[in-house]
Amino acid sequence: MGKKNFVKAITSRDDDFAQWYTDVCRKAELMDYSDAKGFIIYRPYGYALWENMKNYLDGEFKKTGHENVYMPLVIPESLFMKEAEHVEGFAPETAIITIGGNEELQERLIIRPTSEVLFCNHYSKIIESHRDLPKKYNQWCSVVRWEKTTRPFLRGSEFLWQEGHTVHSNEQEAKKEALDILKIYENLGKEILAIPFITGLKTEKEKFAGAVDTYTIEALMHDNKALQSGTTHYLGTGFSKAFDIKFQDKDGKVKPVYQTSWGVSTRLIGAVIMVHGDDSGLVLPPRLAPVQVDIIPIMQHVEGVLEKAEEIKEKLQKLNIRVKLDETDKSPGWKFSESEMKGTPIRIELGPRDLKENKVVVVKRYNREKETISIDDIVDYIPKTLENIHQEMYNQALENVMKNTREAYDYETFKKIMNEKSGYVKMMWCGDDACETKIKEDTKATARCMPFDQTPIGEECPVCKRKAKHVVFYAKAY
Amino acid sequence: MGKKNFVKAITSRDDDFAQWYTDVCRKAELMDYSDAKGFIIYRPYGYALWENMKNYLDGEFKKTGHENVYMPLVIPESLFMKEAEHVEGFAPETAIITIGGNEELQERLIIRPTSEVLFCNHYSKIIESHRDLPKKYNQWCSVVRWEKTTRPFLRGSEFLWQEGHTVHSNEQEAKKEALDILKIYENLGKEILAIPFITGLKTEKEKFAGAVDTYTIEALMHDNKALQSGTTHYLGTGFSKAFDIKFQDKDGKVKPVYQTSWGVSTRLIGAVIMVHGDDSGLVLPPRLAPVQVDIIPIMQHVEGVLEKAEEIKEKLQKLNIRVKLDETDKSPGWKFSESEMKGTPIRIELGPRDLKENKVVVVKRYNREKETISIDDIVDYIPKTLENIHQEMYNQALENVMKNTREAYDYETFKKIMNEKSGYVKMMWCGDDACETKIKEDTKATARCMPFDQTPIGEECPVCKRKAKHVVFYAKAY
Repeated sequence: MGKKNFVKAITSRDDDFAQWYTDVCRKAELMDYSDAKGFIIYRPYGYALWENMKNYLDGEFKKTGHENVYMPLVIPESLFMKEAEHVEGFAPETAIITIGGNEELQERLIIRPTSEVLFCNHYSKIIESHRDLPKKYNQWCSVVRWEKTTRPFLRGSEFLWQEGHTVHSNEQEAKKEALDILKIYENLGKEILAIPFITGLKTEKEKFAGAVDTYTIEALMHDNKALQSGTTHYLGTGFSKAFDIKFQDKDGKVKPVYQTSWGVSTRLIGAVIMVHGDDSGLVLPPRLAPVQVDIIPIMQHVEGVLEKAEEIKEKLQKLNIRVKLDETDKSPGWKFSESEMKGTPIRIELGPRDLKENKVVVVKRYNREKETISIDDIVDYIPKTLENIHQEMYNQALENVMKNTREAYDYETFKKIMNEKSGYVKMMWCGDDACETKIKEDTKATARCMPFDQTPIGEECPVCKRKAKHVVFYAKAY
Repeated sequence: MGKKNFVKAITSRDDDFAQWYTDVCRKAELMDYSDAKGFIIYRPYGYALWENMKNYLDGEFKKTGHENVYMPLVIPESLFMKEAEHVEGFAPETAIITIGGNEELQERLIIRPTSEVLFCNHYSKIIESHRDLPKKYNQWCSVVRWEKTTRPFLRGSEFLWQEGHTVHSNEQEAKKEALDILKIYENLGKEILAIPFITGLKTEKEKFAGAVDTYTIEALMHDNKALQSGTTHYLGTGFSKAFDIKFQDKDGKVKPVYQTSWGVSTRLIGAVIMVHGDDSGLVLPPRLAPVQVDIIPIMQHVEGVLEKAEEIKEKLQKLNIRVKLDETDKSPGWKFSESEMKGTPIRIELGPRDLKENKVVVVKRYNREKETISIDDIVDYIPKTLENIHQEMYNQALENVMKNTREAYDYETFKKIMNEKSGYVKMMWCGDDACETKIKEDTKATARCMPFDQTPIGEECPVCKRKAKHVVFYAKAY
């Protein structure tokens, strides 16, 4: 478990993607398993990724007028039962406290699987007038959903997330909120994760239990399967009627509020691993990386090497670059492997010969490109290169999405693509659950979303031949 | 529950301190009760206080080489039972999950009341060599302790906190860690909360279940009772032996690690309320305040008033001052009351007459001092005044501590002070549990700490007349 296994090769991505994924999670020290099945330990390096995502999102939420709160961990069972669809969606996977302070509880307490009912109950008590609206609350917490099969970051009994819950005086404003947040999520992909998300509306079958509309961000993994990476929900007045959240409007009338909820979770860490990672381990986009530059001295006992390395480190730190100098007694090769496993965007190698020539070797993690540059140029070269790497990684991921997005005009072609290549398939749909179900049974693919660009690519649903109503992106998904 | 109750006066501090406290918690919109007894809702304003404390501490922890992690919410019962003293301390107040995914669990899961055992279990798996040490981990989370009587922020079934858990190769380094963190906590008081803490070592009776030494920060409330506001523990090798956390040292020998743990919680919000608050509500020190300056326009319909108010707001924002302009249709008097209830350090009043004279009225919340200053001076005056307020509030709190710290050389005097005045009483102690117990029975006061300055103030323990060993601060406490 210690450092000694570090350089041991991990499973190849193309041999066994699932095993590769788990290897990266463990060997890059992102997580560890705990003694409670399905509950993982977020180790410092994994948690730092979450913190960087969190800092970006929290800033964007606050800029747009959202406030953080903290609701209780537990929901009394009677409260949990108030909104029927919601209960149906979540009851089967709840964890329940039945004992507190050595006594059987009179009412059982559900560990929050999501907090709609807690927010609704609170809102019903604090909202009276249009003057109290909108309320735009968010919370950072963990939730518990009892899962039979779990995978680090992707599906677990406990995961970290943010959940936003907002209340508005009218439909239009609430719908806009759900879309505004979707944009923030999309920008997280563009600006921080270097992941291009496909966005759109979920079908009835795939939407959130209790939502009118669910919007989604979907990412394509290296194995060509899609990962639902975040959702925003326009809830209409379903919850506000169930929980009696009313307000007196300017016209003096008492009306139910319109609501949204939305969340992204540590599942995004899984997305980053599976979009960018390779056979040497994790590959991190620079803005997300806890360490952006690893400086690795060669023959560090030779006079001047460590001093120069330290000097470079300090110069880069002054530019607010997150840099680490590895002065441990491990071999350079070992340090290279560690740096690669952890996905540090840039590695700087510096040995006695380089020192003499006033040069360093710079290696980009994502494409292994090596360059020799003058030490004098480092302060210009590194920040620029980090920015370029971000853009190049985003472009590479985008190219991969485009290459693996196909259109199908007949169902046979659809099935063939899903069988042989997977990826996204764009196809028309009649809007009937039955066709969606048939597609899933035949191919395991599901409707990932109905994209905002609904320009038709055909007139009929290739499955049932009836009139088509929607453009849909299908994919096999996690 | 809405805005309409805002101006209603709250209970006076000196009439009923407990009721005053609850009134402030509710009326300043810091929290609300949830439907699960003992679990509170941290409303935006209350949560913002916690976020500001958290930002300061997180920065200090990281500067000193600590890393954040996240351990599971739950502890399998068998794991929980490993360290005997620890179990004895926490078992009576645990909440237990017995059902997951509609099935009775084979092993019950304890909701973490604190996470020593989770950290220890993890450390035992990842530590092998002196190269792996030290490990200095911290986590921000909530914990659950089943409490019979609860009070917002002070004692609840769930509270937010940070818990640090560190592992070292030697005793000296671990002991230093416990003291270094105590210093960070003390500085939080000095730099952010404007609270002077008394620090020192806990007695055997008062220390943490499983610790060798517990250090504490104690604050004195307006009612002259002490509040334990945070603790750091030197754990020695008790946990490492129970959990088998060993490392191979440089000399080749396998040894147990030395550990610490430490935490502060949302209880600190309670301290801020009870140290600084007054009969008009909360009083916040400027560095902690979510809003530092409230600008309240008078006769805001008069041309120019709102424009000038907006101009002042923007000028202050450019100085990174957290400022709010209240443009709502409430009356100025109402807005003053709200601003006072929420404890905003400075209020700026601006009406048509002021505008004509190019002046504003500035009111300091903590001492209600009013000044009229030229609008041209605002950008100089406000930042300077915020800094002064911080220092003045700290000094005022310190004076209160000094005024209410007395020395007792005989037990009758001790009892008299505790009965009549409360506050801290400094007295010598023989070191015997029996005397500590007698003091508690006689006066309800407990040993808050043995201060670092152990200059004796007498030769014998006034309770039993035997030889005195320690200087102790006693107080009635929350």
